[in-house]
Amino acid sequence: MEIEKTNRMNALFEFYSTLLTEKQMNYMEMYYADDFSLGEIAEEYDISRQAVYDNIKRTEKILEEYEKKLHLFSDYIVRGELLESLKKYASETYPKDTTIIKYIEQIQEVEE
Amino acid sequence: MEIEKTNRMNALFEFYSTLLTEKQMNYMEMYYADDFSLGEIAEEYDISRQAVYDNIKRTEKILEEYEKKLHLFSDYIVRGELLESLKKYASETYPKDTTIIKYIEQIQEVEE
Repeated sequence: MEIEKTNRMNALFEFYSTLLTEKQMNYMEMYYADDFSLGEIAEEYDISRQAVYDNIKRTEKILEEYEKKLHLFSDYIVRGELLESLKKYASETYPKDTTIIKYIEQIQEVEE
Repeated sequence: MEIEKTNRMNALFEFYSTLLTEKQMNYMEMYYADDFSLGEIAEEYDISRQAVYDNIKRTEKILEEYEKKLHLFSDYIVRGELLESLKKYASETYPKDTTIIKYIEQIQEVEE
């Protein structure tokens, strides 16, 4: 499996898994997060390897469509970079000020 | 129309309208954002008042379900309050520092 694709799917899954069906969730989690093979998932659910494959391909498209419409992942990246830059600036400019850092960390925690 | 309900629906619409069908979008926008009556929407689309009503009620539920699953609106509120507090703290504590304020404003712009 491509590592880049795997990382992206795991990230999109973090944001949109609640919009998937239970079956879609299970297959995606086993395949992308837990590194099961298509054959192993097929065996586990007693269905064909092709059915698992089709379901996963379809779910990948669904996740990409949600990202296109809601861009939660890309917003998260942009916001995260800005927060990190602000954190760096504040801790270098005002090394004794812990208040700013606490605010930044609270903001970072909102999406988790 | 209750003002609280109207405000909430307009807010949820801001976050999730891209997940709705064109018809759902149009009815919600006319009813909640532009204050058309059910009768006026019905006339505009040449369908029954009841059909418009049912569609809007159904769409309200869909928006609330998305919020329950993704909580974009409530996250936005929490993050917004933290960013405002941080802004206030920074501008009071370091009134000459414009860098922090610029970062905060960039972060606020990410979701718009």
